[in-house]
Amino acid sequence: MSQVKFLLDESEIPTHWYNVVSDMPRPPAPALGPDGAPIGPDALAAIFPPSLIEQEVSRERWIEIPEPVREIYRLWRPSPLYRALRLEEALGTPAKIYYKYEGVSPAGSHKPNTAVAQAYFNRRAGIRRLTTETGAGQWGSALAMAGRMFGIEIRVFMVRVSYEQKPFRRSMMQTWGAEVIASPSTRTNSGRAVLADHPDSPGSLGIAISEAVEEAGSRKDTNYALGSVLNHVLLHQTVIGLEAKKQFEKAGDYPDVVIACCGGGSNFGGTAFPFFADKAAGRVVRLVAVEPDSCPTLTRGHYAYDSGDSAGLTPLMLMYTLGRSFIPPAIHAGGLRYHGDSPLVSQLHHDGLVEAIAVPQRATFEAGLTFARAEGIIPAPEANHAIRAALDEALKCRQTGERKTIFFTLSGHGHFDMAAYDRYLRGELKDSPYPEEAIQAALADLPKVARPS
Amino acid sequence: MSQVKFLLDESEIPTHWYNVVSDMPRPPAPALGPDGAPIGPDALAAIFPPSLIEQEVSRERWIEIPEPVREIYRLWRPSPLYRALRLEEALGTPAKIYYKYEGVSPAGSHKPNTAVAQAYFNRRAGIRRLTTETGAGQWGSALAMAGRMFGIEIRVFMVRVSYEQKPFRRSMMQTWGAEVIASPSTRTNSGRAVLADHPDSPGSLGIAISEAVEEAGSRKDTNYALGSVLNHVLLHQTVIGLEAKKQFEKAGDYPDVVIACCGGGSNFGGTAFPFFADKAAGRVVRLVAVEPDSCPTLTRGHYAYDSGDSAGLTPLMLMYTLGRSFIPPAIHAGGLRYHGDSPLVSQLHHDGLVEAIAVPQRATFEAGLTFARAEGIIPAPEANHAIRAALDEALKCRQTGERKTIFFTLSGHGHFDMAAYDRYLRGELKDSPYPEEAIQAALADLPKVARPS
Repeated sequence: MSQVKFLLDESEIPTHWYNVVSDMPRPPAPALGPDGAPIGPDALAAIFPPSLIEQEVSRERWIEIPEPVREIYRLWRPSPLYRALRLEEALGTPAKIYYKYEGVSPAGSHKPNTAVAQAYFNRRAGIRRLTTETGAGQWGSALAMAGRMFGIEIRVFMVRVSYEQKPFRRSMMQTWGAEVIASPSTRTNSGRAVLADHPDSPGSLGIAISEAVEEAGSRKDTNYALGSVLNHVLLHQTVIGLEAKKQFEKAGDYPDVVIACCGGGSNFGGTAFPFFADKAAGRVVRLVAVEPDSCPTLTRGHYAYDSGDSAGLTPLMLMYTLGRSFIPPAIHAGGLRYHGDSPLVSQLHHDGLVEAIAVPQRATFEAGLTFARAEGIIPAPEANHAIRAALDEALKCRQTGERKTIFFTLSGHGHFDMAAYDRYLRGELKDSPYPEEAIQAALADLPKVARPS
Repeated sequence: MSQVKFLLDESEIPTHWYNVVSDMPRPPAPALGPDGAPIGPDALAAIFPPSLIEQEVSRERWIEIPEPVREIYRLWRPSPLYRALRLEEALGTPAKIYYKYEGVSPAGSHKPNTAVAQAYFNRRAGIRRLTTETGAGQWGSALAMAGRMFGIEIRVFMVRVSYEQKPFRRSMMQTWGAEVIASPSTRTNSGRAVLADHPDSPGSLGIAISEAVEEAGSRKDTNYALGSVLNHVLLHQTVIGLEAKKQFEKAGDYPDVVIACCGGGSNFGGTAFPFFADKAAGRVVRLVAVEPDSCPTLTRGHYAYDSGDSAGLTPLMLMYTLGRSFIPPAIHAGGLRYHGDSPLVSQLHHDGLVEAIAVPQRATFEAGLTFARAEGIIPAPEANHAIRAALDEALKCRQTGERKTIFFTLSGHGHFDMAAYDRYLRGELKDSPYPEEAIQAALADLPKVARPS
């Protein structure tokens, strides 16, 4: 009988993160200041520790994972690689489907892979407090857990409407000892400014980022942590793909196509970059980023300089963007509702080295349900995007008879998203039409800076 | 550095369940009919398949796990055994603490170990539908998943107040394709009778059992499934302890004390019985069942014949009971709110072969929080009872300097119980006083049948 799970021993947790920059045909474009001139590492020193800034601009191929980080990883890593035999049978496909399950982390997603590293490097730099923002709470809960592990206080600015309507991840953060503040709050100038105009503001991720960054910038003992987009975040996530490659060796197989959902890019980068190393060395492997069609950054955005937050506080990065003022429709995959994308993923896509597709919401839940009923695990709405793409590849194989090896990352479980499944099962879940006007308006508002040739 | 996780390969999933009856000093007391006479296997044939009835009364030491059951087990089993190094450090104890984590199942608890087996044996007997009851939904969701795996329709009667107030496990059951009905319902005589008197009845587990049993008894293609208490249920759960013993071999260690929370007894029996086999062979090992002090069945109940449901529809079983009419206070560990206990666990306790302790609610959440902040995983409220006892053992070792090996089962995660943690963190969680009067009243109402000597 074929094996279902490919496990690694904890001694096989990677010792180094893989830096994709070392294999990219061109160096990444520099980030720009508000004046349009490239910024140096110093510009980030107010809110990030030196080690993370170094990682952000490094071109080294391998960056060592400190032992204390690997020690925390051991609580749930290596995560299992599954062969989805029951799903293959349910689809009647000759394809082989594998998935790497990151929902085994205590926070239930891949986010702790970088949260633990960021907490460690900040602690080593003498930082005692970290601020961050969170929407529904996946990133906030990961950082709350990581902070607890290294004795760092965590203050999370949580979008007010989520704080009030989705209290369970808030309680999770508090269980790990984090302080959770509904944003906009009266603790920051940014928050107070919003409240002065809109006392009942439901908040937004953009406002919460502004509050977290403002507070980190104004206190010496406090830094800021971001859960995706930046180079060092994607670097930390490469443990996913590195482990998966070892597991494929044990399985005696190798993927024809590697699939991951893509919002800010940390799950896709973490999954796909280690396979990109093989592709750069000549191996044939497709790398596919899957995004929601209501927030189609890679597939319909512009490749241009834009800021990472909606308020325009961050440096400008060259990336695919729908415009920083674009507010994506309220789909349930909150982790994919981001106007921009990782500069590294964006550049690889721009250079034709990774593919991107966009899928509609209902089709992702249909795929998630098929998956849950075959494999047992109920996936997070974000992960349903990857499943949709994997299913479509497998169904193509049913047509062509090809026995392709399809691999995707199941980035998290859906235990905190059952209300979304409930809406789907009642037939109340709608696809958002492509938000053409909102995107065009936001794109028209892009900062006017020259793109380096 | 010491190892944190002891994993087994899926080929090491046990091939047989262990039947504790084979090592008990006395055969189990027979179940009695309403007339006080021992019932034969036939009395159960209307709602259970022959194979499960056979297991219920078997004295064989080993009972083979059918290959299709092991195939489903492979989706999450073997579950990991953890060494809680960070918890040991946080407590400053010389004791070694290990825990077996059953929250890795797709339903998030140990319940699928028997749900899968019950679904399989029913399907093999040609049964196409199973009914069951559920309170907050842990058992219902396990059976929903298991039914889906074997193509059996699942109908779950869910206590109405949970159906309305705790919709997330309901959605989980529906995601796996089960039909969930708020109980009392108009579908059964039992339900209609309740509604006639109390149109707004919030329901109870007792009523839900009556509805599920009534429907199963009245339809030839439909059986009934129970999630705890019965011998065959505990039998299936022995995969927990059997795996743990193999994992302790790999760790080069063996527990001085084995701890599990105990409601109906399936988690405790599944954990402790395989270690009881060693104890029966002369090995020194303590086996400790932990129950809530507001529902202290083993510690303060009578050892007497009583029915398994509150309506008195089931055969009478010799067990520790607080009286079938006792309604336990609404503690958050809903899985431990049961008036009786497994007859096998009860007999072993009566014979002085297993210990039992009762702990108050707030102390269990305090323990759960300590655990979550050290080990990352947020435990289910039921599991917090085992953690409380394990912590107390470890703290004793800090006093005495003993380097004991403490083992407990972490029976499930707390993702669906964050509201309870929230109440604890706000200081709103109370200990219920010992419900003296209610228990005395219920005990006075015990069926008057002679206990076999």
